[in-house]
Amino acid sequence: MSRSSLARFIRLGQRADPVILDAIKRRAPSEFRPALSYHFEVAGKRMRAAVVVLSCGAAGGKVERAVKPAAVVEMIHNYSLVMDDLIDRGEVRRGRPTVRVVMGDSIALLVAMFYRELLDDLIEKSPASDEVRKTAVKTMEEIIDGERLDLLLEQAGRTDPYLIKNRIADPTFRLYLDMVGKKTASLFKAAGRIGAYAAKAETRVVNALGDFGWKAGLAFQVMDDVLDICGEKTGKQEAKDIIEHKLGNAAILVAMRFLPRKDRLELKKIIGSERVSRQMVARARGIVNKTPAERECKEIAMKYLEDAKTSLFVLKPSPFQDALSDLADQIVARSY
Amino acid sequence: MSRSSLARFIRLGQRADPVILDAIKRRAPSEFRPALSYHFEVAGKRMRAAVVVLSCGAAGGKVERAVKPAAVVEMIHNYSLVMDDLIDRGEVRRGRPTVRVVMGDSIALLVAMFYRELLDDLIEKSPASDEVRKTAVKTMEEIIDGERLDLLLEQAGRTDPYLIKNRIADPTFRLYLDMVGKKTASLFKAAGRIGAYAAKAETRVVNALGDFGWKAGLAFQVMDDVLDICGEKTGKQEAKDIIEHKLGNAAILVAMRFLPRKDRLELKKIIGSERVSRQMVARARGIVNKTPAERECKEIAMKYLEDAKTSLFVLKPSPFQDALSDLADQIVARSY
Repeated sequence: MSRSSLARFIRLGQRADPVILDAIKRRAPSEFRPALSYHFEVAGKRMRAAVVVLSCGAAGGKVERAVKPAAVVEMIHNYSLVMDDLIDRGEVRRGRPTVRVVMGDSIALLVAMFYRELLDDLIEKSPASDEVRKTAVKTMEEIIDGERLDLLLEQAGRTDPYLIKNRIADPTFRLYLDMVGKKTASLFKAAGRIGAYAAKAETRVVNALGDFGWKAGLAFQVMDDVLDICGEKTGKQEAKDIIEHKLGNAAILVAMRFLPRKDRLELKKIIGSERVSRQMVARARGIVNKTPAERECKEIAMKYLEDAKTSLFVLKPSPFQDALSDLADQIVARSY
Repeated sequence: MSRSSLARFIRLGQRADPVILDAIKRRAPSEFRPALSYHFEVAGKRMRAAVVVLSCGAAGGKVERAVKPAAVVEMIHNYSLVMDDLIDRGEVRRGRPTVRVVMGDSIALLVAMFYRELLDDLIEKSPASDEVRKTAVKTMEEIIDGERLDLLLEQAGRTDPYLIKNRIADPTFRLYLDMVGKKTASLFKAAGRIGAYAAKAETRVVNALGDFGWKAGLAFQVMDDVLDICGEKTGKQEAKDIIEHKLGNAAILVAMRFLPRKDRLELKKIIGSERVSRQMVARARGIVNKTPAERECKEIAMKYLEDAKTSLFVLKPSPFQDALSDLADQIVARSY
């Protein structure tokens, strides 16, 4: 499949946006609509929508059937983004002030709650709506629990009694994988499965595409973690996870394994400090970069990426399969 | 129907609680369960569940079929309560600290989000799940928009740019009815309709029970407003709506119609003050009580209550119909 025809299919994913805007128009009172539309006015990359569309094609379905399911997946994603920004006091997203900054926390909360109801409408209008609904709800539950685990892995910065009482100060890498699996990979998994459902695919195919999404999602998140700590400027704030006291970062956790006790304690102390200065961030990055964490994490990510592609081997070969592999490469390499 | 057998049917509504706790147990990760159960550990009055159960009976259904639908309605209610407490910084509910006080705002938000997903599971397991889902989603949308209108009717106390920009300083009584219709009456309406769906009732009966719920809900809210401003101590904080700058209160809006310009401006000034002192509250109540607002509002509430009962006349006479009328009386009189 040529790059340009790949691009054409991927652009189908961006047709999720009009579907979402149409749902807002059909279901929301007119005075509420501008508040609900704001977040969707700047198109995101719609990576997850692209996974839905290409998965539908790879499962032998007409890609047009995947547009509404793609809207379902993007709505889940954007619902969780608006809620995340409330939890993390996020101020900028896609280069624009977040909903909560433009409108205030109370209205941002109502906007997100309304998104959840619109999600139901989008599901209703999807092909294979029963399977899509089951997948969507299970995924939402996982995303919420993943967010809970992510918060429990923060070592400072919040006064929530629940977090202080249940904080996880010594996570295993397995717990980290559980957290990012739920927080990030589960929606990519849902994207693969929902694309397959739209194609009326058999269980084997649904599972294969779900597996692809799951592993591509893990690869994406591990790489995201590495770039945050070890990378050069990536457009994102540097070492945001250190500033936000997050121990739930692959690079930090892998580094811990290699560090002598003294360095390990210092790194933990920085992450657990209520105020993390620029010097402390630089020091923490220096400690991590003394270890092979960057290389190790990139290897872990590449392994997941390869496994993701291998999941596709059970499918009937098609240009969509190649397109999915390409897409996974681009997502993980941040070139999408 | 004797009081004791009425009580027995109403207690069926309280079987909604175990259904909800069971859903938490089945679907939530074990470490998340205590946080999710907390809010349901103290049984509320479950008024809305009682409406579902009795409506099912009044529509000719077996009341046992209404237990899961009652859980749906109570889950909607409690989801909105936890979110409301986030928006209003609520600290006490049913005599206990709120979820956000016990666990913190971030976790309270995740708890409420998880409730929304559990709601889907409860709907799935309800009789007439398609109709129940449509009703539930539409009701949720109305509750969210009702909350938005309620916030827009607040005259001070928040810094949300959306609220400051769109604040409604001169609401009509029609707008007030739109707001409380959405915020309060729509869920009572849903309770009536969902009870009827559980009984596989015909449209005429569904509409009648929905109409009953709608009007009983309006009566309940108007009375709630009057008791807040004009009532003796009701267990609730006195004149909470004045302290919280809420112009969306029936007694205040009706009083405005009777007041000379000077008093009207003073009342508005108090409600719009960033800090409302005890003296200011007493003064505002004094101004309202100079008018016939209390009597007028009680008449409005009684009119809705009578209309609610009249809605039931199209049903085949049954003890459940009497029980619903009794229940509406008790709900509005706060003796339930």
